[in-house]
Amino acid sequence: MSKLLIVGTVAFDAIETPFGKTDKILGGAATYIGLSAANFNVDSAIVSVVGEDFPQEYLDMLAARNIDISGIEVVKGGKTFFWSGKYHNDMNSRDTLATELNVLADFNPVVPENYKDSEIVMLGNLHPGVQMSVINQMAEKPKLIVLDTMNFWMDCAWDDLLAVIKKVDVITINDEEARQLSGEYSLVKAAQKIHEMGPEYVVIKKGEHGALIFNDGNIFFAPALPLEEVFDPTGAGDTFAGGFSGYLAKHENISFESMKNAIIYGSNLASFCVEKFGTQRMESLTNEEITERLKQFKQLTQFEIEVN
Amino acid sequence: MSKLLIVGTVAFDAIETPFGKTDKILGGAATYIGLSAANFNVDSAIVSVVGEDFPQEYLDMLAARNIDISGIEVVKGGKTFFWSGKYHNDMNSRDTLATELNVLADFNPVVPENYKDSEIVMLGNLHPGVQMSVINQMAEKPKLIVLDTMNFWMDCAWDDLLAVIKKVDVITINDEEARQLSGEYSLVKAAQKIHEMGPEYVVIKKGEHGALIFNDGNIFFAPALPLEEVFDPTGAGDTFAGGFSGYLAKHENISFESMKNAIIYGSNLASFCVEKFGTQRMESLTNEEITERLKQFKQLTQFEIEVN
Repeated sequence: MSKLLIVGTVAFDAIETPFGKTDKILGGAATYIGLSAANFNVDSAIVSVVGEDFPQEYLDMLAARNIDISGIEVVKGGKTFFWSGKYHNDMNSRDTLATELNVLADFNPVVPENYKDSEIVMLGNLHPGVQMSVINQMAEKPKLIVLDTMNFWMDCAWDDLLAVIKKVDVITINDEEARQLSGEYSLVKAAQKIHEMGPEYVVIKKGEHGALIFNDGNIFFAPALPLEEVFDPTGAGDTFAGGFSGYLAKHENISFESMKNAIIYGSNLASFCVEKFGTQRMESLTNEEITERLKQFKQLTQFEIEVN
Repeated sequence: MSKLLIVGTVAFDAIETPFGKTDKILGGAATYIGLSAANFNVDSAIVSVVGEDFPQEYLDMLAARNIDISGIEVVKGGKTFFWSGKYHNDMNSRDTLATELNVLADFNPVVPENYKDSEIVMLGNLHPGVQMSVINQMAEKPKLIVLDTMNFWMDCAWDDLLAVIKKVDVITINDEEARQLSGEYSLVKAAQKIHEMGPEYVVIKKGEHGALIFNDGNIFFAPALPLEEVFDPTGAGDTFAGGFSGYLAKHENISFESMKNAIIYGSNLASFCVEKFGTQRMESLTNEEITERLKQFKQLTQFEIEVN
C-alpha cells in the first residue's frame, strides 16, 4: 500500500439547498478527500490549517479513520476558513454567499516528516502557490501527483497555476474549467491542450454527467449514478478525487487500466456524498454499501456485444 | 429478421453551424432513422409524404439501401416540408429560422399492405395524431412500438400526445423533454412518471452526455463518444432511434439486455451523423467503421473490477 498525502482545506461550510439549510458544519476539500480515501484503509495524512474555533471532535473523527492529522496546524486565536453557498433548483449552479479566508490567508503548509516520502500526493483545491510548496517539500519525486483546482485560480493566480500544473501527473478539473484553462470548447481538444501543459492524465468531471479520463489518445468514461434526488452536491468533486487517489494508493498501480477503476470508485463514492448534507453520508458509509453500488455501476455500463 | 416500419418526415433542411451553412439538403426524421437502420440490413419501409419538388435521386438513394419507399406519398404540385435552423456556438442550442409544413399539413399516412404486419414500428417525431393513425392501421399488435417525440407536441397537442404515449412500448425523448412531460427534474423520477403513462421502456437522450434506458427499476447508460468536433448535430437523435430500432429488428430480441446493445449502437451511429452536414456522413458509412467505433465504445466504458 502506498502512502497518500492529502493537501487542502479543512473548513466550516454553511449550505442551503432546495431541501433545507445547515448551520456551520464540517467541510473543506481535504476533509472530503480524506473521508473518501479512508474507505480504502490507506495510510494517509492531511496537511491543512484550522483556527482555535475548530472542534476537536472533528479532528478526532478524521484520526479515527486512520488519517494522520499531525499536519493540520491549529492556529491559536485564529478562525477557521468559512464558506457559505446556496444551490439553485437545478443543483448544478450555486451562489457563494460568504468566503472568509481567516487562517487560510497565511497558510504555510508543513508536510510531516514521515509523509515526505509519500508515493501519492493529492493536492486538493487551494492556492497553486500552496500546492507548489507541498511538492517542493517532498523528499523525492512522488510516484504520482494529482492536482485538483478551480476557475477561481485561473482568474487570479494564472502564472502560479500554470507552474504547478506543469509539475503534476494528473489534473482533475470540471468541464467548464477545462474549457477555460484550454480555450477549447471540445473536451477532447481541451484535454489535448492540457496534456501539453504538463499532466499525462487529464480527468474532466462533468457532475451529474460523469467523468472522463484522457491519456495519450485513450479515453475512459465513468458515468454518475442516476439518482432520484441530489440532496447536497457540496464535496462531490473532492470525494471523487479522494476515491480516485485512495484507490490508486491501495492498489499501488498507476497504469491507465488502474485509473479506469479509480474513476469508477471516485464516481461511486461521490454518488453517496450527495445523498445528505455535508460529510454526513460519508461518515456513515460502509464497505457493503460501496460494493453494492459497484454492482449498480456494472449494471449501468457493462454490455455484451461481440466485436468481430 | 423482423420487419421495421418507420414513420416520420422526409424533408428539406437548411442548416447553419459555426462551421458553415448549407442550401436545401435532404433531411427529415424518417430519412435519418431509415439511413441508420439500413446499416443492419433490415427489411424496412418508410411512411411519409413529400412534394413534387422532392428529387427522385433522394428516393432512389433510400431505395438502394433496401428501404421500401412505396409508403412515401408524392403530392402532385405540392411542396416538401422545409426546416431551417441555426446552431449556437455550443452546438447544444439552436434557433429555428423557418418551418414550412407544406404537404405535411394534410399528411394522411398510409401503411403499405405488406408492412401492416411489421413486428417493429418506429414512430419518428410527427404530430401524435399521425403517429396514432399508423398504429391503428397495423393488422395486429406489433411486437414493439417505439415513439420519438418533442416538446413542440407537449405545447400544442398534449392530449393527442398522451393518447399515443399510452399505446407504445418504448419512448425516446431528450432530457429537457422528459422533464417537461413528467414535471420532474430528476431523470430517475421523470422516467418513473413516464412509465406510468404507458411505455415499459423509457429512453432519455442527453445529447453529448449520452443516453439512459429505464425499465422496471433497471437502468443502463450509453455514453456519447467524445468527439474532437461536432460539425452538425441535426438528425443525431433520429439516427440514434434508427440504430436502436434497427438493432432490435435485426436481432428479433426485445429483452432489456438486447436494448442495452441497441442504445450502444444508437449512440455509435449518432456519433457518425454529427461529423458532417446533414445525411452526408451516414450515406458514406461502412460496416468496418461501425465495428471500429464499437471497439472505441468498449474501451470507453468497459472495466474490470471484481465484485465480491
